[in-house]
Amino acid sequence: MRTIDWKDESSSVVLVDQTLLPKEYRIIECKTLSSLCEAIKSLRIRGAPALGAAGGFGIALAAFLSEARDIETITRDLEVAGKTLKSTRPTAVNLSWGVDRVLRAILDAFDVQGVRDIALQEAKDIAEEDVATNKLIGKFGAKLLKDGDTVLTHCNAGRLACVDWGTALGVVRSAIAEGKEIKVIACETRPLNQGSRITTWELMQDKIPVTLISDSMAGWVMQQGLVDSVLVGADRITQDVVFNKIGTYSLSILAKEHEIPFYVAAPISTFDFNGWEGSVKIEMRSPDELRFFGSEQLAPKDVEVYNPAFDATPMENITAVITEKGIFYPPFLLDEVLV
Amino acid sequence: MRTIDWKDESSSVVLVDQTLLPKEYRIIECKTLSSLCEAIKSLRIRGAPALGAAGGFGIALAAFLSEARDIETITRDLEVAGKTLKSTRPTAVNLSWGVDRVLRAILDAFDVQGVRDIALQEAKDIAEEDVATNKLIGKFGAKLLKDGDTVLTHCNAGRLACVDWGTALGVVRSAIAEGKEIKVIACETRPLNQGSRITTWELMQDKIPVTLISDSMAGWVMQQGLVDSVLVGADRITQDVVFNKIGTYSLSILAKEHEIPFYVAAPISTFDFNGWEGSVKIEMRSPDELRFFGSEQLAPKDVEVYNPAFDATPMENITAVITEKGIFYPPFLLDEVLV
Repeated sequence: MRTIDWKDESSSVVLVDQTLLPKEYRIIECKTLSSLCEAIKSLRIRGAPALGAAGGFGIALAAFLSEARDIETITRDLEVAGKTLKSTRPTAVNLSWGVDRVLRAILDAFDVQGVRDIALQEAKDIAEEDVATNKLIGKFGAKLLKDGDTVLTHCNAGRLACVDWGTALGVVRSAIAEGKEIKVIACETRPLNQGSRITTWELMQDKIPVTLISDSMAGWVMQQGLVDSVLVGADRITQDVVFNKIGTYSLSILAKEHEIPFYVAAPISTFDFNGWEGSVKIEMRSPDELRFFGSEQLAPKDVEVYNPAFDATPMENITAVITEKGIFYPPFLLDEVLV
Repeated sequence: MRTIDWKDESSSVVLVDQTLLPKEYRIIECKTLSSLCEAIKSLRIRGAPALGAAGGFGIALAAFLSEARDIETITRDLEVAGKTLKSTRPTAVNLSWGVDRVLRAILDAFDVQGVRDIALQEAKDIAEEDVATNKLIGKFGAKLLKDGDTVLTHCNAGRLACVDWGTALGVVRSAIAEGKEIKVIACETRPLNQGSRITTWELMQDKIPVTLISDSMAGWVMQQGLVDSVLVGADRITQDVVFNKIGTYSLSILAKEHEIPFYVAAPISTFDFNGWEGSVKIEMRSPDELRFFGSEQLAPKDVEVYNPAFDATPMENITAVITEKGIFYPPFLLDEVLV
């Protein structure tokens, strides 16, 4: 199944619980907005494009759950639901984008049932478009990979970060679909290990060769000549920087030092045309993520921890940004992306 | 107590089991050579200088355990013990150094009891000298730290890596002893988390302010202006490179990019005057270190893993090497260090 989808029979949102991978593949069903918000906050669903779909489906879910009898009341209910959804992951621009897109669409409705129908259709459209978008990103990006290349990636910008196919890993899949041999080196991506838990799992499902390293080994594998390009996703792209999982910034410097191309693969919905580095507040996550892993204690319980979820990579460290509209080589103006 | 010591009552080697930290502080007693070898191999005792003492005490232990009745037989026994000890951590030059120093010393003995007495005295001397050496490294290195500095460190080059005081963290301790305020940022140091488990623990014991980060955050904290210098230990220093815990090489590039001084603190015994980068085989460790943490599964059980224990940082990335003979600024000839 897809990473996130709508289940018509029960009017609910279904999603792969990614916190259980790779030990267990379990689908969870969110029948309430609070269970969906919990799933977003706990990273059961994560990845920028998947969060866009989650935002859209979240508003559809709220529309089906609302007991409002008039259009003003349901609209108010959905606006409240939108704020609640957005607050779960404030840095994730796609989540807000998905929410806002559905909220805008329902303005065309004439009655309560119309709101529900339009909200659901728009959310489903977001999911369909995401798959189509990723296939396009893949098609453009595949041109940058040569037969026999090894790609180093960080976090999970794969099928499980999207509705399907993936952004960074979608580029790998598209290159392989064209007949190229591509290998992947996956950084484990501390502290939540999306690389070791999710990226390796989804690539192994597709029989794509993958080698796991710790984040600290990235510079060394580059120095050893084992990496042909670095390929990552993005959580938010402003005029000056790319916000992505913490560790991306370091990788960009290491790639520059070793003269290895550094690619970012992301849909246009990730672009923040009004933002810049200083306008985005980076989410700080719980210190316990570095003190514990599950039941295992990694550090003194009361040690001070610095745990930002993201960092900001300057455009000058980026060789190209791969989108569904083509490949953009910095420096470029965000406006050009939309032409 | 010290990290490693000799217990006269039972003629055994006692050491702090560092694999149990920070959850538990337990002293283990090695009454056989195989239990000491197991402790070295499992990293219950680790850190270059501590391994020097472990090598020395290991030969002393073998001398007390040998049932030989003549000097030729006990000498042969100890040579075999030396080979066994060295094979537990082939990259660790100090381990070999400690073994060889005691093996050389016993050549002065006239009988079996003389071998035992000399071996033990020489091993104890190694331990005493290590503490004195670290105090000297600390004294020289402290000159490089300014009041108010924040030092980023990797792995554990602390009291627990040595017999006492520490090399990199010994420099921090000496600077604090001189009245300077110094803060430490500790990289967790995957995959075995010596940074989060051991460095934070020993600094908190001494009430030295420490903040834990994941290895992937190192570049970002530098970019944020939070780091005044990087200070690490070394496992082996050749003419061209410094071998140290995997991740050190990446840190050296990140420091260079941010124009932050990069210091290595290590005793002269770490220098390998005949070695160069290519002459050292880097130890590859078990893939399971990246697949599991204790009882927690981090990755698919059968995922391919690349897990080198060390990397090699070129001298040109290093601002200075701090030793008990003073501070050396690359490029320098190893011969100069001994003058």
